[in-house]
Amino acid sequence: MKKVTVLGAGSWGTALAMVLAENGHDTLIWSHRHEQAKEINEQHTNEKYVPNIQLPENLRATSDLKEAAEHGDIIIFAVPTKAIREVAENIMNYLNRKVLIVHVSKGIEPDSLKRISEILEESISPHVIEDIVVLSGPSHAEEVVLHHPTTITAACTNLRSAEKIQDLFMNQYFRVYTNTDVIGVELGGALKNVIALAAGISDGLNYGDNAKAALITRGLAEIARLGVRMGGNPFTFAGLTGMGDLIVTCTSVHSRNWKAGNMLGKGMKLAEVLESMGMVVEGVRTTKAAYQLAKKYDVPMPITTALFEVLFNEKEPKDAVDELMNRLKKREIDYLQ
Amino acid sequence: MKKVTVLGAGSWGTALAMVLAENGHDTLIWSHRHEQAKEINEQHTNEKYVPNIQLPENLRATSDLKEAAEHGDIIIFAVPTKAIREVAENIMNYLNRKVLIVHVSKGIEPDSLKRISEILEESISPHVIEDIVVLSGPSHAEEVVLHHPTTITAACTNLRSAEKIQDLFMNQYFRVYTNTDVIGVELGGALKNVIALAAGISDGLNYGDNAKAALITRGLAEIARLGVRMGGNPFTFAGLTGMGDLIVTCTSVHSRNWKAGNMLGKGMKLAEVLESMGMVVEGVRTTKAAYQLAKKYDVPMPITTALFEVLFNEKEPKDAVDELMNRLKKREIDYLQ
Repeated sequence: MKKVTVLGAGSWGTALAMVLAENGHDTLIWSHRHEQAKEINEQHTNEKYVPNIQLPENLRATSDLKEAAEHGDIIIFAVPTKAIREVAENIMNYLNRKVLIVHVSKGIEPDSLKRISEILEESISPHVIEDIVVLSGPSHAEEVVLHHPTTITAACTNLRSAEKIQDLFMNQYFRVYTNTDVIGVELGGALKNVIALAAGISDGLNYGDNAKAALITRGLAEIARLGVRMGGNPFTFAGLTGMGDLIVTCTSVHSRNWKAGNMLGKGMKLAEVLESMGMVVEGVRTTKAAYQLAKKYDVPMPITTALFEVLFNEKEPKDAVDELMNRLKKREIDYLQ
Repeated sequence: MKKVTVLGAGSWGTALAMVLAENGHDTLIWSHRHEQAKEINEQHTNEKYVPNIQLPENLRATSDLKEAAEHGDIIIFAVPTKAIREVAENIMNYLNRKVLIVHVSKGIEPDSLKRISEILEESISPHVIEDIVVLSGPSHAEEVVLHHPTTITAACTNLRSAEKIQDLFMNQYFRVYTNTDVIGVELGGALKNVIALAAGISDGLNYGDNAKAALITRGLAEIARLGVRMGGNPFTFAGLTGMGDLIVTCTSVHSRNWKAGNMLGKGMKLAEVLESMGMVVEGVRTTKAAYQLAKKYDVPMPITTALFEVLFNEKEPKDAVDELMNRLKKREIDYLQ
């Protein structure tokens, strides 16, 4: 039995905390809202994020960040990507021993072009970090809380730490693989949201499954091209955190990024889309970062570039998708290599 | 303007003939049923296979195989995989000049373990074959006849012949890439039907999107592992005819193989499933061939093997999928390499 803290009680944080509590670990989940922590402790539910689910009674919650920091030997960041830096800096004040840090966030910070693990490394003193592990893969929280089979990857440059997280989560319905390619895992997870926006636009234009499959395929090719240039392992992009997560995100109507793209394809303006979603659409920020990375590393990323023009330069979605489809390339291998 | 014959007036043959006629080519489509040829010639429709679509008036049909053989300088085989050998042997009787042969079929012959282009090479005298080109990729006929954007690959060991077919089909909504890796293109197209059956079973068991994404990802990994061992280019499996076609087939409810798997997952027996489908489920035959190929080339193919046990040895679908999910593999890279 391990002592584990999960920071963030959204749907994914709650689902992961549930897996851990069911595995018998002493699990404390932190929410910045007192009412939510109270609901989890007293009613064993979190209706807003995992409706109709009874949480295990041994899962406890707190809204006290100091208590959360002092509880876990393993601390899992499951807060929105935009909040990572702030929560990391705040929790630093209460950490006075080495902890194993895990994050499950997907994104790249525009301008700084940092991956999540790099942001964590910057925000938390190396003296209290045992290692940083990223947990990523095709995983709707709604399915995990129903015990549907899910397969996911724990990545760390130190394989032993990835294996610790594998052992922590592994059970009959939640299968964990390890990988040492942190760069590839983080880039795949972040950049799939760019392609999900593009796939949503194509669907919003009613272009059909043939066009969407072509976009997803060429999307993964450009993600891998950038990722390998940045030091990732090409096999990682063909795995659960690359292709697997990309497929789930582009073909599920639950995906926020697909949904936002779909509205753009139907003719709504970006501002209206963001307003109507009422929550962060991570892919919009990531598109900007990906566009900057493509320039920095001088890697052709036609889908990312087209999407950047749609989001930030008012290009018509239809023109952007049509141009992508019509790019004259003679040999298929040319765009894959 | 080229003279082109399309053999087979099913949905895919009709859709391709429509593209060619719209591109201005002198196109003749052959059906073995006189009534169907008559409907196409007189009413310019093919209601059974492409309902509610008006065919171009310059598209002509015949049920006379001799006329079909004598018409085209390019002959496109769009008959069911099982009929390829018979139609090829019959048309041989009427060919007395070199023609460029194209096929769009997906499958591998059990026992002989031949790919479609190998079957054609065996059945047609080399004296009348200019080259054999395979046309493959993510392409529902229903979408092509509506002019939805579609991207596809023409593959031939002789790049010039692939380019001829590219030029023949290419237009605003139908984009054709070339590839010289015939082995990779044919294997990807055939073996995706095995994974589509497995994905259908997972969906029939209500295992959800997480499980399906894992199956598709690991499915492509085992297809590529076998394909590379047989001489295919690893990039081909990451392209339109590999990943692209696999995604469309596993996520569309129109896919016959997915549908058959879905019924198996819901508890129907194989005989009942085949009876209720009333048509060939190519993936069943291909599973047998793939299982034989895995043995012959000594390549681990756990999904193919599990499916073989379900189809031919009465293994319970649930047990097969659960075992696949629970295979203990420590490092993700191990199953990808």
